[in-house]
Amino acid sequence: MTGPRRLTTEHEFQERWARAQVGMGELNIEALVIGPSPDMAYLSGFSGRQSERLTLCVLPVRGAPRLLVPGFEAPRFACVLSLLDAVFWDDGQDPTDLLPALLPRHPGPVRIALGSELFARSVLAVAQRIAQPDFVDASVILTNLRIRKSATELDLLGAAAAAADATMDDLVSQHLLGRSEAALAVYIRQRLIENGHDVVGHTSVCAGRNAAVPHHEPGRDIVTAGPVLFDIGGSVAGYRSDVTRTMTVGEPSKELEEVYETVRTACETATRAVRVGGRACEIDNAARTIIEKAGYGQYFTHRTGHGIGLDVHEPPYIVAGDDTPLETGMAFSIEPGIYLPDRFGVRIEDIVVVTDQGAKPLNLVTHELIITD
Amino acid sequence: MTGPRRLTTEHEFQERWARAQVGMGELNIEALVIGPSPDMAYLSGFSGRQSERLTLCVLPVRGAPRLLVPGFEAPRFACVLSLLDAVFWDDGQDPTDLLPALLPRHPGPVRIALGSELFARSVLAVAQRIAQPDFVDASVILTNLRIRKSATELDLLGAAAAAADATMDDLVSQHLLGRSEAALAVYIRQRLIENGHDVVGHTSVCAGRNAAVPHHEPGRDIVTAGPVLFDIGGSVAGYRSDVTRTMTVGEPSKELEEVYETVRTACETATRAVRVGGRACEIDNAARTIIEKAGYGQYFTHRTGHGIGLDVHEPPYIVAGDDTPLETGMAFSIEPGIYLPDRFGVRIEDIVVVTDQGAKPLNLVTHELIITD
Repeated sequence: MTGPRRLTTEHEFQERWARAQVGMGELNIEALVIGPSPDMAYLSGFSGRQSERLTLCVLPVRGAPRLLVPGFEAPRFACVLSLLDAVFWDDGQDPTDLLPALLPRHPGPVRIALGSELFARSVLAVAQRIAQPDFVDASVILTNLRIRKSATELDLLGAAAAAADATMDDLVSQHLLGRSEAALAVYIRQRLIENGHDVVGHTSVCAGRNAAVPHHEPGRDIVTAGPVLFDIGGSVAGYRSDVTRTMTVGEPSKELEEVYETVRTACETATRAVRVGGRACEIDNAARTIIEKAGYGQYFTHRTGHGIGLDVHEPPYIVAGDDTPLETGMAFSIEPGIYLPDRFGVRIEDIVVVTDQGAKPLNLVTHELIITD
Repeated sequence: MTGPRRLTTEHEFQERWARAQVGMGELNIEALVIGPSPDMAYLSGFSGRQSERLTLCVLPVRGAPRLLVPGFEAPRFACVLSLLDAVFWDDGQDPTDLLPALLPRHPGPVRIALGSELFARSVLAVAQRIAQPDFVDASVILTNLRIRKSATELDLLGAAAAAADATMDDLVSQHLLGRSEAALAVYIRQRLIENGHDVVGHTSVCAGRNAAVPHHEPGRDIVTAGPVLFDIGGSVAGYRSDVTRTMTVGEPSKELEEVYETVRTACETATRAVRVGGRACEIDNAARTIIEKAGYGQYFTHRTGHGIGLDVHEPPYIVAGDDTPLETGMAFSIEPGIYLPDRFGVRIEDIVVVTDQGAKPLNLVTHELIITD
């Protein structure tokens, strides 16, 4: 098993703060206020989750960021505290009493950028400590930083994709017939870690008609003859993997073959459509056109993909209306699907990185329909 | 394996809406706006998680609640849609365009209660669609409903506690020496499900000095002679379990025995202090006094406990300053601990329910120091 890595240097974090502060200055934002989230991991390296105990990172437009941290959590913040100052509060204390020390304090309106995933209770706590808050979504600053991955970030996305691919390959060698979705999810979880992830992300197993439900959770249903869809992933040093393959137990029906080939062509056509300067929505359109022409347009019920990095879903979104111009270093999924309600579904998903030569897929598991038992 | 149960009836949900609406009327709140969260599970039965796709439940002060749901997620909302109307939006559409159909629309200030865990991006989306929003935390309404559990809810908490206890008992029969925390976490995950949980919650394994870090995540460290702390739980039909025991591999040192007995006495004294009409903070004080008198006060770095239900941490908090009067049907953890930095830690945690006869523990695993190998 590979343990957590933290490859981001202190210097890289300082560069990220400086770049965020340039954006903040341009938009008259006086402070960025984020909770434990991928945003906080990006700016500090702390990868924990939000809880009911107020935990914040506040980046002022000038100067270093500071943390507000529950005192007993100090050991978990040890690696971050070498980088950042923190104000601690203890259970029994009201942490909002400490907010004035962290937030801009002057009369009149104060523009604050809030982490997109900051809990409303924290938003309201901040609002109560500023006379005239003017809140904006911190994505106006942070998306622009996080959307283009550095060489280190791309290495980690590559390592995560390789660990997910190895797990998908392990599944190919398994007997699936008669096993429950939940039992297969347990197997996947073990293999995701043993193949190199630090943390398990998702272990979706959709047997038969459950494959027609894009976000189905694995349950007691048993794999029978026919399609089985696996959508799996984890993270390496915080960077996520996300890969989907649809296999079939026993010989495929003519209809399954036709649906599968349509999805495969959509996936590969969309991948070939990726080019620097193109738009995110054009990749969606490339996939959708193939599926529509094959007569399945109404059954492709979601966008073609999503960006990936410290979050498994992040900008750019490969969807109508997202006209983000593609640049080298962007990473996103291409994952068209066809879902025939109460019957079956097919999805193929790869992560690709934008390069000067077009899309470079990070996932390399075959696109052939895998026939298993 | 026991599959998901949903025992809450349509009538019970309707009663919850009506009770929330009484509270809203008293506080001049015109609508409650919540995202996927324990609050949404409580009001609708939907147990999914918040994502980047806007998903809301809006309960107006009069009338039935309505949902805003991504269209492709309709199959996952099937059981909820028999109860509630929904407005659907598709990938590529701006869901905030649909908000006016769900929110109060009139000139002047509109008081809205926001789910405590609603993401800031959703808060800002709602704010943009109301001329003069006046936001409050929905906990002012929902805590009062959720804090006293119904007979059905107590049954489910009991079933979850029994499944967690069975898993702790399984751990007692395991050889621990030489196994990694991560490998033990995998074992716990399997046993939590096989013992009756629908979903795994937390699988904390803290070997040796890691037991001095209250929220330690299991990693590559290996169990050696000395204390090992397990803090584990899952959910049954959404209702959570949470139990902690500290065992020792090999004979305990005198110091470990002394610390253990102090924590055990604190836990049992606090449990005996529970009575209807007492205050949450008094239970904290009962545990803390024992530990302080033994000279370990500075090493008991967190509150004594937290409420439990659809959320693993929810009101009442067993902490200085929480003067919630205890009532029958309240359920919370009692979990004092002593953490000696870089050396070891001990915590014992049970869930108890307030009854007319005092605390009824739901967890029944022995409080004796378990000596294992």
